[in-house]
Amino acid sequence: MNQASHPASDGPAPAGRLVVVSGPSGVGKSTLLSRVLPRTGAVFSVSATTRDPRPGEQDGRDYFFVSRPRFEEMVRQGQMLEWAEVFGHLYGTPAGPVLENIRAGRRVVLDIDVQGAIQVHAKMPQAVFVLIVPPDEQTLQARLTARRTETPRQRDLRLGKADQELQAARDSKVYDDEVVNDDLDAAVERLVRIIQQESGKA
Amino acid sequence: MNQASHPASDGPAPAGRLVVVSGPSGVGKSTLLSRVLPRTGAVFSVSATTRDPRPGEQDGRDYFFVSRPRFEEMVRQGQMLEWAEVFGHLYGTPAGPVLENIRAGRRVVLDIDVQGAIQVHAKMPQAVFVLIVPPDEQTLQARLTARRTETPRQRDLRLGKADQELQAARDSKVYDDEVVNDDLDAAVERLVRIIQQESGKA
Repeated sequence: MNQASHPASDGPAPAGRLVVVSGPSGVGKSTLLSRVLPRTGAVFSVSATTRDPRPGEQDGRDYFFVSRPRFEEMVRQGQMLEWAEVFGHLYGTPAGPVLENIRAGRRVVLDIDVQGAIQVHAKMPQAVFVLIVPPDEQTLQARLTARRTETPRQRDLRLGKADQELQAARDSKVYDDEVVNDDLDAAVERLVRIIQQESGKA
Repeated sequence: MNQASHPASDGPAPAGRLVVVSGPSGVGKSTLLSRVLPRTGAVFSVSATTRDPRPGEQDGRDYFFVSRPRFEEMVRQGQMLEWAEVFGHLYGTPAGPVLENIRAGRRVVLDIDVQGAIQVHAKMPQAVFVLIVPPDEQTLQARLTARRTETPRQRDLRLGKADQELQAARDSKVYDDEVVNDDLDAAVERLVRIIQQESGKA
């Protein structure tokens, strides 16, 4: 399951691919990906960061831990597919390991926000960009009313924020596919198919 | 359980009180409040909004539905304890129903962000302001590692955002109490005690 089940048409090399996945907060993207990755044999892209490692964290598995000067040098040399400064630390996706995985025939999944996806799209437009979207308003309302752990106002604010994030994602025009997370099992199947597909973008 | 179990010292009137509750996103505040309210007999403050009612929503229960001119008039006349414009609609807390509930001896709970709490504090400093805070870093890390549904980077971003919100809340200096949501049952007990207490601010 770790590689494409049949070779690409131009030779024996299996079809490695970068799949960029985004979604508004609260859409269930993390749960979805944690179910999808074991099914597809895809691997998560490992980010680089300038923050210090914490106990139990391994360089190359949890993060590539690099100094700020080294990170900035990688940015200058075009070695980051995307990067951002968040809460005083730099985070980014080094291109090298992603390209190595693709050449080895692996699907690589990058879980990133819209700003990151836009940067990746500029450098690797041939990657597959997937947007996880919430169910339609009616389904969502029914689900939330069943839950009833928040006030109508808190719910409005949360849904409004998700709507705004979704709109920004759609406005970016970088996404090739949308997966509606209405039923988790069904959404897992749809995302598995997108990650495994041979056709489409190279 | 709907009112104070013994009268305040200055007479037979029960001790109604406004309790303002805030907490960074993801801290579990909604779940906590949904458990605490039935225990204390406290009522949620009902917000006013300029958005249209949706099917099933009742005026005075889910929201006070008001026109924008009416909302703006209430703001000008000082009848909103706090308000904000969010995603094109106005939301606020009308002072009238809160004061009526307090006079009737009820505890009224307002679930609001820090910006709202600061506004309420300016108008009703005698209210009780409670901040729900996440467990210490170590407990949180252990809990998250057990869950493992997100990448280290997504986790960093989420925790960083919560940290920033918490810092902003503490910087506001309006909160009288903090409730650590480490163990849900224990946190429920602590918040129940704060809502039921007779002493402290009038």
